[in-house]
Amino acid sequence: MVDTAFYINKGPLTLQKVSELTGAELKDPSKSSTVIHNIAVMGKAGAGDICFFYDKKAKEKASQIEATACITTEELADFVPDDVVKLISSDAKRAFLKLNMAMYDEKSRGFGIAESAKISSSAKLGKNCVVGENVVIEDDVVIGDNCFIEHGAVITNNCKIGNNCRIGVNAKVSFCEMGDGCYIFAGAQIGNDGFGFMMIDGKHQRIPQLGRIIIGNDVEIGANACVDRGALDDTVIGDGCRIDNLVQIAHNDIMGRGCIVVSQTGIAGSCTFGDYVVCGGQTGFADHLNVGSGAQIGAQSGVMQDIESGAVMMGYPAQPIKDFMRQALYLKKALKNK
Amino acid sequence: MVDTAFYINKGPLTLQKVSELTGAELKDPSKSSTVIHNIAVMGKAGAGDICFFYDKKAKEKASQIEATACITTEELADFVPDDVVKLISSDAKRAFLKLNMAMYDEKSRGFGIAESAKISSSAKLGKNCVVGENVVIEDDVVIGDNCFIEHGAVITNNCKIGNNCRIGVNAKVSFCEMGDGCYIFAGAQIGNDGFGFMMIDGKHQRIPQLGRIIIGNDVEIGANACVDRGALDDTVIGDGCRIDNLVQIAHNDIMGRGCIVVSQTGIAGSCTFGDYVVCGGQTGFADHLNVGSGAQIGAQSGVMQDIESGAVMMGYPAQPIKDFMRQALYLKKALKNK
Amino acid sequence: MVDTAFYINKGPLTLQKVSELTGAELKDPSKSSTVIHNIAVMGKAGAGDICFFYDKKAKEKASQIEATACITTEELADFVPDDVVKLISSDAKRAFLKLNMAMYDEKSRGFGIAESAKISSSAKLGKNCVVGENVVIEDDVVIGDNCFIEHGAVITNNCKIGNNCRIGVNAKVSFCEMGDGCYIFAGAQIGNDGFGFMMIDGKHQRIPQLGRIIIGNDVEIGANACVDRGALDDTVIGDGCRIDNLVQIAHNDIMGRGCIVVSQTGIAGSCTFGDYVVCGGQTGFADHLNVGSGAQIGAQSGVMQDIESGAVMMGYPAQPIKDFMRQALYLKKALKNK
Repeated sequence: MVDTAFYINKGPLTLQKVSELTGAELKDPSKSSTVIHNIAVMGKAGAGDICFFYDKKAKEKASQIEATACITTEELADFVPDDVVKLISSDAKRAFLKLNMAMYDEKSRGFGIAESAKISSSAKLGKNCVVGENVVIEDDVVIGDNCFIEHGAVITNNCKIGNNCRIGVNAKVSFCEMGDGCYIFAGAQIGNDGFGFMMIDGKHQRIPQLGRIIIGNDVEIGANACVDRGALDDTVIGDGCRIDNLVQIAHNDIMGRGCIVVSQTGIAGSCTFGDYVVCGGQTGFADHLNVGSGAQIGAQSGVMQDIESGAVMMGYPAQPIKDFMRQALYLKKALKNK
Repeated sequence: MVDTAFYINKGPLTLQKVSELTGAELKDPSKSSTVIHNIAVMGKAGAGDICFFYDKKAKEKASQIEATACITTEELADFVPDDVVKLISSDAKRAFLKLNMAMYDEKSRGFGIAESAKISSSAKLGKNCVVGENVVIEDDVVIGDNCFIEHGAVITNNCKIGNNCRIGVNAKVSFCEMGDGCYIFAGAQIGNDGFGFMMIDGKHQRIPQLGRIIIGNDVEIGANACVDRGALDDTVIGDGCRIDNLVQIAHNDIMGRGCIVVSQTGIAGSCTFGDYVVCGGQTGFADHLNVGSGAQIGAQSGVMQDIESGAVMMGYPAQPIKDFMRQALYLKKALKNK
Repeated sequence: MVDTAFYINKGPLTLQKVSELTGAELKDPSKSSTVIHNIAVMGKAGAGDICFFYDKKAKEKASQIEATACITTEELADFVPDDVVKLISSDAKRAFLKLNMAMYDEKSRGFGIAESAKISSSAKLGKNCVVGENVVIEDDVVIGDNCFIEHGAVITNNCKIGNNCRIGVNAKVSFCEMGDGCYIFAGAQIGNDGFGFMMIDGKHQRIPQLGRIIIGNDVEIGANACVDRGALDDTVIGDGCRIDNLVQIAHNDIMGRGCIVVSQTGIAGSCTFGDYVVCGGQTGFADHLNVGSGAQIGAQSGVMQDIESGAVMMGYPAQPIKDFMRQALYLKKALKNK
C-alpha cells in the first residue's frame, strides 16, 4: 500500500475508470461502479485494492489473491479466484504503468527559489523552476523551464540545461550541456577531470582535461554516479540513456541512444557504444572499445575486446554467454569426475 | 598513538583500573599502580603504552614488545618479554574493545543547531539534537532525541528518524522510516527512485517508484552508499545491519537482522536476505534471489541463484567455496601438465 | 575543438612558438609564422588547428588529416599528407602535454571567500585561498596558501591541509593531514570510521576508529571515492598517488609513492602497497595483503594473496597474467573439442 505520508493518492477510482485508463476490459460490467482505493502487490492486496498478475510463475500466489480487483491476461485469468473482479489486458504490465501514473504522484516540491540559493546574476533560469536550499548556480549558466534543482546542488559556470530537468541533492554539474527531461540523481558528479596522466621524471603529470560532457534528452544518471569530461573531445551520453547508481563513465566515452547501464558498472576511457546497449551490474570495460548496438553484457563481465551488434556476452574475460555457461558446466563436471 | 588533536584521551589509567575495566587479570599485583597513557599497536607501543596480543601468528613480533603493559591470553603470555607487565584475558579482543571505549572518545560535536540550518516549522526534533551548517530538514519530518545531523545533510519531507541517530555530511534521507541508533555515513543516498523501466515505443519509460525505505534499529549505512526506495512495496534493512561504503541496495530488497555487506557490493532488486548474511566486498546479486540466514558469500562473487541458509559460497558464478577453490587448483594443474 | 565557454584559449600561436614550447622541429622553416588557433583530435582537426599523431595504429586515419599542422615522430611523418605542416618530436605525447598546458587554461575561480562559508575563528587559512559557497571549515583547521575549497566542502576540526590543494564540491575531509598540491575531487569522503566490528551478544559492536588519514604531497583522490581513517594506527597515502573515482580504501591501508588505483577498485583493511603499484579498474584486495613495488594488477582481479614486486597479475583469484590468459584459452579449446 502506498504511504500517503510520502505520495499523493489521486483515487479512489471506479473500475469503469480503471478500464478506461488502462484499456483493460472489465469482464463483468455490473462491477463498473466498484471502487478501488489503492494498487498493491499481489500478496498484500486486500479489500479496496487492485493488483496485477502477469508473471506466469506466480500462478499459485494468484490463487490466493484477496484484492477487490485484478488486472491480468486472458491466459492467466482462470488462476485468479472467482470473487476477485477481473480486468483483461493484452499488455498487463503496461496497464500497471498507466494506472500507477494515474493514481499516484510524488508530493509537490513545495518551494520556489530558496533564499539561500546562490544564483549568479548572469545565470538565466526559465519559467517555473524550483531551486532548493543552498544551491549554487554560477556565472552564465542557462537553465530551461520547469527545472527542479534540489538542495545543495552545484552547477558551475556556462553549463546549459534544457527544460524539465531535475538535478538531485548535492549533485554537481560542470562543463556540461544537457538536453530536455534529464534527471541527474543525488550526489552524481558530472564533469570532473578525466583520469589521464603521463609519467614524467617519476611523477604522474596530469594531462589537462579540456572537453565537455554532452548529454542528450531524456537521460537519467544515478545517485553518486560519476561521468568525467573529455580530454580534448567530449564525453557524450545519447538520448534516452539510463545510467544507474555508482556507475563510472570515463573521459571521452560515447554512448548511443537508449543504453541501459546497471549499477556499479565501470567504462574506461574512449569507449564507443551503439544504441540500446544493455550492461548488467558491476560490468567493466577496458578503454577504447567499440560495443555494437543492441549488445547485451551480463553482470560482472570484464570486457576486453570489441563487441558486435546484438551479441550477448558474459564472463571474465567476456565471451558469448553460451560459452560462459558451458565453461561453468564443464568445470563442474571435470571436478565431479575426479 | 592516538592523536589528541582529533580524539579525547580520558586516561591515564592505573593497571588496577585497566584490570577492572577489561576483566583481565594482572599477573603481578605489585604493578597495580603502574600507569598507562595510551593504547598502541604492538610494533609501535613504548613506555607508558599498553598493547594487545591475541594474534597467534604474531608471536615473533610479540617478543619485541616495548610497551609498559600487554593484555594477552594465558596461552600466549610466555611470548611476551619479561619486563612487560602482563594482564591475562580469556577474550583479549573484547578486552581491547572495552579499554578502547573507556580510554578514548571523539571530540564533542561543539555546536547546537546551526543558524544556517533550514528546518521546516512543521518538523519535530527531539531533545539534545545537534544540527550542522546548511542542513535541510523538510516539512513534517520527525527526529528523535540525541540525534546528530551533520553539515549539509538533507532530510526530505515526512521522514521519521528515531533516537540516537547520526546522519553524515551531505547525506540524503528521503521516503524513509528509521529506528534508533542508526548511523548513515557521509554522502550516502537513501531513498532514491529504484531503477525500473518499461520499454514503450523505443523509450525506457520510468515506472513510478512509490515505496519507502524501512530501516530498523542499530543500522549503519556507509559513505556514498545508495539504498533505493521500493516500487510499490518497501525496501527493508533489518536491525543491526552493517552496510559498508559504496554499496548499492536496489528497490524492494529485504534484509534480515545483523547482515554485513562489505564495500562496493551490489544487490539487484527484490532480493530477500535472511539474518546474519555476510557478503564480502564487490559481491553482486542478480534480482529476485533468496539468500538464507547465515549464508556467507566471498568477495567478488557473482550470485545468480538462491543460496541456502548457512552456505559458504564464492565465485563467478557463485558456487560452494570448496568447489571454487578446487576449480582454481584444477585449472592450475591442467596448465602445468601441458 | 576546445569550447571557450568553459576554457581559456591563450592562443593563437605561431608554429615557431609551438616549436619552442614543445621542442618539436619544424621541418619547413618557411612556415614558422603560420598561426594555429586550437589543438584538435586528428579526425576533427581542420584549418587553423594542430593535431598530434603518435599512435602507430592510426596510420590510415593520419592519411586523412586536414589540420594546418601536425606534431608527429620521424618514423610516422610520411603517413601525414604533404599539405599538412609537420613538426617532428622524439616524444610527441609529451609535446602534446606541453602545448596543451601552454595553450589552454581553466577559467578563473572567480570568487574569493564566499560570505556563506562558515569558517571557525580558530581556523587558519594561508594566502590567496578561494573558498566557495556553503563551505564549512571547523575549529583549529590549518590550510596552506593558494588552496581552493569548492562549494559545499566540509573540513572537520584539526585537519591540516598543505599549500596548493583543491578540495572538490561537497567533499568531506576529516581526521586528516595532507601535504601540498593535493586534489580531493567532488563528493570524496576522506576520514570516515573504518568498517570494524566485534560480535558481542548477537550484535556487531563497532570498534572505535581512532586513527588518522595521512596524505602525502601531490595526491589525487577521485570523485565519490572513500578513504576510511585507521583504527589505532593511520591510513596512509604516499606522495604522488592517483586514486580514481569511486575507489574504496579501507582503514589502515598504507600506499607507497606514485601508486595508480583505477576506478571502483576496493582495498580491504590493513593492506600495504609499495611504490608505483598500478591497479586496473574494479580490482579487489583482501585484507592484510602486501603488494610489492611496481606490481601491476589487471582490471577486475580478485587478489587474495601477497604480490611480489614487479609482478603482473590478473584474474579471480589473481595469478600471473600469463596464466590467466592461458587458462582462458585452455577453457575455450576444451569446449571446442567436445
